[in-house]
Amino acid sequence: MIWPGRGRPRPQAFRSRRRREQRVDRLPLGDLRPEPVALLGRTAYLQLSLFEFATTLAGRATELKDREAITRIAAALLERHTSIVTMLEDHGVDGATAMQPYTDEIDRYWRRLGETAWIEAVLTLHLATGILDDFFAQLGAGLPGRDGERYPALLRRDIGHEVLAGLLADAIAQDRRTTSRLALWGRRLVGDTLLLARSALGAARDTSGVPATTDERRVEPVLTELIAAHTRRMDGLGLTA
Amino acid sequence: MIWPGRGRPRPQAFRSRRRREQRVDRLPLGDLRPEPVALLGRTAYLQLSLFEFATTLAGRATELKDREAITRIAAALLERHTSIVTMLEDHGVDGATAMQPYTDEIDRYWRRLGETAWIEAVLTLHLATGILDDFFAQLGAGLPGRDGERYPALLRRDIGHEVLAGLLADAIAQDRRTTSRLALWGRRLVGDTLLLARSALGAARDTSGVPATTDERRVEPVLTELIAAHTRRMDGLGLTA
Repeated sequence: MIWPGRGRPRPQAFRSRRRREQRVDRLPLGDLRPEPVALLGRTAYLQLSLFEFATTLAGRATELKDREAITRIAAALLERHTSIVTMLEDHGVDGATAMQPYTDEIDRYWRRLGETAWIEAVLTLHLATGILDDFFAQLGAGLPGRDGERYPALLRRDIGHEVLAGLLADAIAQDRRTTSRLALWGRRLVGDTLLLARSALGAARDTSGVPATTDERRVEPVLTELIAAHTRRMDGLGLTA
Repeated sequence: MIWPGRGRPRPQAFRSRRRREQRVDRLPLGDLRPEPVALLGRTAYLQLSLFEFATTLAGRATELKDREAITRIAAALLERHTSIVTMLEDHGVDGATAMQPYTDEIDRYWRRLGETAWIEAVLTLHLATGILDDFFAQLGAGLPGRDGERYPALLRRDIGHEVLAGLLADAIAQDRRTTSRLALWGRRLVGDTLLLARSALGAARDTSGVPATTDERRVEPVLTELIAAHTRRMDGLGLTA
């Protein structure tokens, strides 16, 4: 990416503007009514696994200030996990019991992504949380009662994407070849992440009781929106999606 | 360890009683005045490293409920780290800058302990935080101003030792040979942990300005007290120190 006549951009202003455009405001999820304990259990475990991923990523940082900054992101993910477990307990369900059915599928997701270089893992955290937060915040808006507000609010609170975008911009500025490596990784990662989101739709039913995934006309527009937001996020980093 | 005529002990009551006896109430630190930024920087990094250790330990648990429980301990350690960084910022010092001088020494501590089986790592977390919390809480009581109360209070808040003691008791109950393995590991680990505590005394000076570690008569009674508390902690687990 070339910034004619002004060297490096002022990342802060640039990114904040982009960031607002990167959110999905509305997914065509219609009147889906997710089953509370299933959705909370699934995402409690998802956030736990994201927290562990972020902590490992922090521990691998070469600069202490980056380790510190990513640890704050890990803390935000852990806070989400803990809050969702508290919501489960409000439903009279123990966190571990509710999470158990979803561990295999989510562990498989991380295994498929495999070990990567550090900067690719930074991109994973940035893009995967981008897609999954958009998706689950919207799906969770269909939860009954107070959960329908608490849960999306929890997932919409920023975990610190500016920090991740800053690390990616620095890496690209230092070595332009990083751009193509990261672009490739971003394209690789979107498929598995969409599958992970999609599988949660199997657990959501519309008001007629039909599982959402049985209806392809329903799922496709949702995925299209998520991909569009992902593309804007890649574009915000100067990467070709 | 044999529990004649009553099978396994009721661990809860047993441990709670022991727990109170395991604390060091007063170390003979006299009028040591630790330098605030040095002590806070050192322990901010120590708590960060303990947090990372606990998170890895949690991720290696085979039972999801244990993983969940140890993650809560990790969260408590992270909360300490974050609070100490906030205290540093109150002194006008950035966390990463204040921690930097202590990273090598603390990383070396973890490297020396090396990779262990999971249950040994549970014991590491239980005993190392036991020794280090006792020591730093007492040393920190000599900090000037509000820090002299905030800092010890932070380190005295329990991170969840009952959980760790419970996991250790379960492992011992399942296979009595674990007792000797753990006793051995407890003895192995105490030396390095005392050295880590001791090195902080080099940074503390008494009111005459003499570094505490230059005076062996000063250091020895402190170590003796810490070892005594460690022995009571081992004893509380049914292990020979």
